[in-house]
Amino acid sequence: MGESNASLQLTPDGNLRHFLSIDGLDRAMLTRILDTADSFIEVGERSIKKVPLLRGRTVVNLFFEPSTRTRSTFELAAKRLSADVLNLDIGTSATSKGETLSDTLLNLRAMASDMFVIRHAQSGAPHFIARSVTPDVAIINAGDGRHAHPTQAMLDMLTIRQHKQTFAGLRVAIVGDIQHSRVARSQIRALNTLGVDEVRLVAPYTLLPNRPEVLGARVFSRMEDGLKGVDVVIMLRLQRERMEGALLPSESEFYRMYGLTEEKLRHAAPDALVMHPGPINRGVEIESSVADGPQSVILGQVTNGIAIRMAVMSMAMSGQLGDRQSEQGEGVQAS
Amino acid sequence: MGESNASLQLTPDGNLRHFLSIDGLDRAMLTRILDTADSFIEVGERSIKKVPLLRGRTVVNLFFEPSTRTRSTFELAAKRLSADVLNLDIGTSATSKGETLSDTLLNLRAMASDMFVIRHAQSGAPHFIARSVTPDVAIINAGDGRHAHPTQAMLDMLTIRQHKQTFAGLRVAIVGDIQHSRVARSQIRALNTLGVDEVRLVAPYTLLPNRPEVLGARVFSRMEDGLKGVDVVIMLRLQRERMEGALLPSESEFYRMYGLTEEKLRHAAPDALVMHPGPINRGVEIESSVADGPQSVILGQVTNGIAIRMAVMSMAMSGQLGDRQSEQGEGVQAS
Amino acid sequence: MGESNASLQLTPDGNLRHFLSIDGLDRAMLTRILDTADSFIEVGERSIKKVPLLRGRTVVNLFFEPSTRTRSTFELAAKRLSADVLNLDIGTSATSKGETLSDTLLNLRAMASDMFVIRHAQSGAPHFIARSVTPDVAIINAGDGRHAHPTQAMLDMLTIRQHKQTFAGLRVAIVGDIQHSRVARSQIRALNTLGVDEVRLVAPYTLLPNRPEVLGARVFSRMEDGLKGVDVVIMLRLQRERMEGALLPSESEFYRMYGLTEEKLRHAAPDALVMHPGPINRGVEIESSVADGPQSVILGQVTNGIAIRMAVMSMAMSGQLGDRQSEQGEGVQAS
Repeated sequence: MGESNASLQLTPDGNLRHFLSIDGLDRAMLTRILDTADSFIEVGERSIKKVPLLRGRTVVNLFFEPSTRTRSTFELAAKRLSADVLNLDIGTSATSKGETLSDTLLNLRAMASDMFVIRHAQSGAPHFIARSVTPDVAIINAGDGRHAHPTQAMLDMLTIRQHKQTFAGLRVAIVGDIQHSRVARSQIRALNTLGVDEVRLVAPYTLLPNRPEVLGARVFSRMEDGLKGVDVVIMLRLQRERMEGALLPSESEFYRMYGLTEEKLRHAAPDALVMHPGPINRGVEIESSVADGPQSVILGQVTNGIAIRMAVMSMAMSGQLGDRQSEQGEGVQAS
Repeated sequence: MGESNASLQLTPDGNLRHFLSIDGLDRAMLTRILDTADSFIEVGERSIKKVPLLRGRTVVNLFFEPSTRTRSTFELAAKRLSADVLNLDIGTSATSKGETLSDTLLNLRAMASDMFVIRHAQSGAPHFIARSVTPDVAIINAGDGRHAHPTQAMLDMLTIRQHKQTFAGLRVAIVGDIQHSRVARSQIRALNTLGVDEVRLVAPYTLLPNRPEVLGARVFSRMEDGLKGVDVVIMLRLQRERMEGALLPSESEFYRMYGLTEEKLRHAAPDALVMHPGPINRGVEIESSVADGPQSVILGQVTNGIAIRMAVMSMAMSGQLGDRQSEQGEGVQAS
Repeated sequence: MGESNASLQLTPDGNLRHFLSIDGLDRAMLTRILDTADSFIEVGERSIKKVPLLRGRTVVNLFFEPSTRTRSTFELAAKRLSADVLNLDIGTSATSKGETLSDTLLNLRAMASDMFVIRHAQSGAPHFIARSVTPDVAIINAGDGRHAHPTQAMLDMLTIRQHKQTFAGLRVAIVGDIQHSRVARSQIRALNTLGVDEVRLVAPYTLLPNRPEVLGARVFSRMEDGLKGVDVVIMLRLQRERMEGALLPSESEFYRMYGLTEEKLRHAAPDALVMHPGPINRGVEIESSVADGPQSVILGQVTNGIAIRMAVMSMAMSGQLGDRQSEQGEGVQAS
């Protein structure tokens, strides 16, 4: 699947044209995304936070699964790139009138949309769209089923690089419900591609993936063992519906065993980073004093989320334009 | 009604100031709208799809009936004209606090709104507003009751002209639930005004209008007869609630008799256009291979929908400004 | 509370940095807000209604209580200042996933938001946020509990000044459910700060505040006495849920006693202004002929609402920037 993911996401000359998953992107491309995002960090600090890279472009946020938070970050990123943004809550729209997903997308494309940001409950939906429905519209995956959430993974990589400079030699623990997490899947791939020393998965056996060794990760069921000496601790969100499914004992039981407390954090390296994708459940996944403590970089992750989304949006738009013969010479230049 | 529709929609010197219905607009005005839309087609193909015609203007989308699709096309059209857009879902807003429709509109006008795009379940609501409530705000009818949907009709005219160059000599069949269709009513009027040779209505007797001859159309109850030799086939959407009202036998029965299949299409001219306002119900109103076939111009209609909306919005804004003495000399110029 | 409200809302050199309540702002500051708003009135009359004061700034409308009308006025005001606007209906968002209010706000701040416009059912929520959560984001109070609605009060002051030139010597009656009205609380404070001669509260005893003399107002339970000779009559909205709570007899009974009819209005000065925050309930709080009559300035209040919001948004943004050392020299200049 790596090969086809590469050819699907990249132009013949190796530029990004869709951003669907970390699979298929090599270390050089991930580094290029991080470097581009770095250049946008500065934009967020300016009083005028606009760059004209997507001026006159139409970005459609197509959220088949509701997520105000993620949608807002893409909306802000697109507006800071000067794009026109259309938010569609697809659950209440045309698809309910008997129209197929493909027809909905072809209609939006016919309105001269340039980019679709897609969140979908079904794994692989963004790939299917990029391959078979609207290959000439830049597709950004904003989370598909249990499969991938690549912008979340890349904002985490940006945060790690800001604090640790390099990935070589790092040991990173991912803690929580790995089994159902599209975020974890993307993180593991990104960490390995960028060359960390070791990825550890810490979870009860019921919440581990089936063949972790294929993913390039070691598994631990005891928090104390998993965190020992790590440089980065990435907590996952606990999905409450899993507990009702009897895969987990109870919130308090989970917190006792896998919640990140000050005490458990002492097993990690003294300068270990504490990360969490948010929104955080204080006292369920993480102790308040840890979330607000000196090792926490959680709010930095949020800031980096805007920069990463600006990076992949501008790079994919640029790659799409490079692909279109007819528009040669007037393409957007991403740095 | 034609006369009053003319004086209501046009300035004393014959420019558009509201766009409420095809009634009252002559062939020269419809042609001007099509020509203006043609100039915007090119805008949709540019990398920077913005023109500054409505810059600093405030367009309010007032949808008393929900329609994500139509609202999105007006929103995109307004943004490409550089307007500020406010979307109001009126069902959940002030009118539920006991405020009258007139007061809601006068309040929005007092906020210095320049244009209202109105969809309303009641026939004539946009006319009432343009005549009696806010005559100095440009009113665009986005569909009122069973009465009119003039931008849909005009995008259809634009599509026909693109492929057939002229309307003279054309025979056009409109197929489906004519009786309840505001789209059909506007199409029949536009086709006759633009000078086609013949408009045919194809439907079961229960779904035909009462006096089709007044509309300037011939009726057919057999699809094979109605399509014979026509140059354009316009399918309508089947409203499922009509079937529950016993006006129609069943979806499969309707498809058998009036669904546009490859076989039935062979009765039309070999180069007949296939049109549909969308969203399409494949296998209910139209066979998939016809919707996707070489004669289908359905996606072209969508593209033209943006251009037509840009055209009537910029023309009505320009006409309104011409009307206002106080703002003489700084009016927007529509091409 | 006045003192702390002053230091919370103002920079050390006396500029606005949040706009939370009239409390703590002196006559000079209220006058500065009115003067700034006056300069924006002219903007609403231009064909291009944009000024670049908030260009590249991100304004987040955080409505914990729904209010389409108030949200729309802030959205329009922000767009006319050229800001990027994000509308968040917080009821359906992250807070429902177990995230605290503080965490939601810190996350939005981390996305480089510059201003929060906050409506909240709890009195004091905007103050709490400005003091303890995100002091470096400009906070605008769009109505909190029964406490304050300061932009509504200031748009009323602007309307009075437009028609009466000065506040000295004016007698102003506020009529209706004073007890539960955040608007009335802000109006009383603003009127007294700006130096009117007398503020009168007209209501049944059940709807009067507990200690009106502390607020600086005289109370009247008979409409005829309360209106005698006043220069301004400000009607309040009747909250229907109060009637169910048995604090009021019935709509018709209320209208008979406190509805503003032509007959009752004759007790006021002949050139008395008639004001109402909208949406109006004709025949419940006010007679139609009075709402539409020559003394009514209700629609002028709406127009002024946009100007006042533009004024406090641009002034608070400017004050915030003055506070930030790092951005010295590139701050927005409000007139």
